[in-house]
Amino acid sequence: MTEKLPHIVIVGAGFGGLHATQRLAGKPVRVTLIDKRNYHLFQPLLYQVATAGISPHEIAYPVRAIFQRQRNFSFLMSRVLGVDFERKKVLTEEGQVDYDHLILAAGASVNFFGNASLEKNALPLKDVSDAVTVRNHILRMFERATLEPDPEKRQALLTFVVVGGGPTGVESAGALSELMRLVLRRDYHTNINVEQVRVILLEAVDNILAGFPASLQDSARRSLQRKKVEVRLNAKVDNYDGQTLTLAGGEVIPAGTVLWSAGVQAASLMGRLGLERAHAGRVKVLPTLQIPGHSDVYAIGDAAYLEEDGKALPMVAPVATQQGKHAADNTLAQIAGRPQKPFHYNNLGMMATIGRNAAVASTFGMKFRGFLAWAVWLVVHLIGLIGFRNRLIVLINWTWDYFFYDRAVRLISRE
Amino acid sequence: MTEKLPHIVIVGAGFGGLHATQRLAGKPVRVTLIDKRNYHLFQPLLYQVATAGISPHEIAYPVRAIFQRQRNFSFLMSRVLGVDFERKKVLTEEGQVDYDHLILAAGASVNFFGNASLEKNALPLKDVSDAVTVRNHILRMFERATLEPDPEKRQALLTFVVVGGGPTGVESAGALSELMRLVLRRDYHTNINVEQVRVILLEAVDNILAGFPASLQDSARRSLQRKKVEVRLNAKVDNYDGQTLTLAGGEVIPAGTVLWSAGVQAASLMGRLGLERAHAGRVKVLPTLQIPGHSDVYAIGDAAYLEEDGKALPMVAPVATQQGKHAADNTLAQIAGRPQKPFHYNNLGMMATIGRNAAVASTFGMKFRGFLAWAVWLVVHLIGLIGFRNRLIVLINWTWDYFFYDRAVRLISRE
Repeated sequence: MTEKLPHIVIVGAGFGGLHATQRLAGKPVRVTLIDKRNYHLFQPLLYQVATAGISPHEIAYPVRAIFQRQRNFSFLMSRVLGVDFERKKVLTEEGQVDYDHLILAAGASVNFFGNASLEKNALPLKDVSDAVTVRNHILRMFERATLEPDPEKRQALLTFVVVGGGPTGVESAGALSELMRLVLRRDYHTNINVEQVRVILLEAVDNILAGFPASLQDSARRSLQRKKVEVRLNAKVDNYDGQTLTLAGGEVIPAGTVLWSAGVQAASLMGRLGLERAHAGRVKVLPTLQIPGHSDVYAIGDAAYLEEDGKALPMVAPVATQQGKHAADNTLAQIAGRPQKPFHYNNLGMMATIGRNAAVASTFGMKFRGFLAWAVWLVVHLIGLIGFRNRLIVLINWTWDYFFYDRAVRLISRE
Repeated sequence: MTEKLPHIVIVGAGFGGLHATQRLAGKPVRVTLIDKRNYHLFQPLLYQVATAGISPHEIAYPVRAIFQRQRNFSFLMSRVLGVDFERKKVLTEEGQVDYDHLILAAGASVNFFGNASLEKNALPLKDVSDAVTVRNHILRMFERATLEPDPEKRQALLTFVVVGGGPTGVESAGALSELMRLVLRRDYHTNINVEQVRVILLEAVDNILAGFPASLQDSARRSLQRKKVEVRLNAKVDNYDGQTLTLAGGEVIPAGTVLWSAGVQAASLMGRLGLERAHAGRVKVLPTLQIPGHSDVYAIGDAAYLEEDGKALPMVAPVATQQGKHAADNTLAQIAGRPQKPFHYNNLGMMATIGRNAAVASTFGMKFRGFLAWAVWLVVHLIGLIGFRNRLIVLINWTWDYFFYDRAVRLISRE
């Protein structure tokens, strides 16, 4: 007679949940992964879906396919509503799920910092449907511009503002500018003068790519400017009514499109658990990644708050990935009665791409920029994709676009 | 002083409109193509989007990209509301467009034959969003089945009915069965017994693939049966309430999914023009493809009704393609004062694929079946795709799926 194996429930199929699940393969536990979507999303390339470069399915891989061969694995597609820590149950839209150990890897959502006008009118870029909405919107602006006789209204339709100078904002602005100046210029050559198109990157503080070495911040800014992106520093957004953006100083920018990449916060689930939270709504965890007072519950990635050397660990994929593995290991240790270990982030560096032949990267104390950084960025992101086929097809798409100044997916897909 | 060139307006960017536009490249005319979508859709492969095999953008190609180099070309993305034949204007949502010559290539829409229950609950398969809806629905039925304790309800969730035994219905039923028996069986191996899955093809008359030689009809039917599709002949659908399908004889089939491929009709625009219409709402045209009484207006493809040898030309891509070229030629002849020619359909044959290694084809009096017909089908459809990249990527996807029993796009993309 075999005892029933311990049941580990993992909430969220992002980088953290995925690596925690993988780490538990072949171990004497049962694993249930819960996510409201049936796929893992490779978020670092989401901006390329938004700018018509790749198709959603190339960066979204079905969870069941990933774990087809993991015999101790179950999947539940459902929204998680809460957790009953007393009775050790996860509350989902499809009913309650008992756990012995719980790993919360719920990720993050967009943060508009309470600005209702931005929440209503600016376009976020956090999941696949956001990216497709952005793509449709951008292309629709071009179609509308071909029909707009009024020069001022036309200029507004052709003005694209990206708010937030972090890696996502920088990458979006660079990709937008190239989409317009290299690709759409030919689609619309009879109707639109591409010199009229403005791409503006707004950053609230005094340089883009906060956290990067200063010399790389400067070279990224110059790269963007060479690609005709107007970079505006110390520019804080006050209001956007869907047609006119107002800055904190009172300046107005008529713009048909505002992409919002200025903030994220822990997933809303983390606010419904009655736990102590820190900056950006992240739940405080112990160095072992356990939640204080709940020794059988772990939180990881964007959903969790942990400081190292007095600084919060950033909300990035490598942190989530490493914490996923670590939480799985600590859970197994706990089950086996072994001591749990504190988490230490192995920071491999940071990178951001600006567009063709241009990126910045910082790793092991070395700085790269230009073509070399760009090549490294390509390789790292290709390897990060799940599935050989996706890698091959993304590689073909990138190669094609590179040589032919093309973008495969410039479709307006919704009515 | 140059005279203003004649303006030819083409409504619809399907096969007919596309080939008419291409035929006018380099000619002394101005061409405006109008479509509510910004892409041309390769409809023959739409069922593969619905069954998670390929991604929408692989069969949807932006109109502006197709005609980037055609200097006499303009595109208007808009819905067409009507035509003022007196004043020679096309009425669109974006305003009026004057024409000298008009080619109506508005295509077809789904025909539910006035059955409100089917219109509400059965899933059509006519455009990209239909296909994505079908894909999401199928995968969601599987997810729901994993959670359904009641065996009868579970059986209904795992029952997939395709109505209509034409090529689209046959291809959809075959692809559905393979999706479930070869691919999803592994995704859901711990939760669902794939032997429980039923795929049922309903055909109202006494054999599938009407119009095909009888021996090919029979071998297609046997092929489907080998792939575990239940083929029901002389089965007419009466009602579908979203859970239970009722046949004309009173028999009921509990089914969570009913795909409707039993009928098409000319696009609704053709009913708003005050023109004489024939079967399926198609507008009657002269052998020159002109509309009687309107010598400067042509109708082609699914939107047009023309008989040859006493039989209506079928609503298929080759007819639309050939008529598109022919209408363009006749328009040019008309402008040049040369005589217009009657259209003759060059019927190259017909084909339908049932799945891996199985298809039927009939051409030049020869009949093919099995692997050979399937190989011919693959080549013909690959060539039909627009763009070298799309051909390459679809070829990679097909090859991969063939060897690895995989499907790339099993994503549930909407909430």
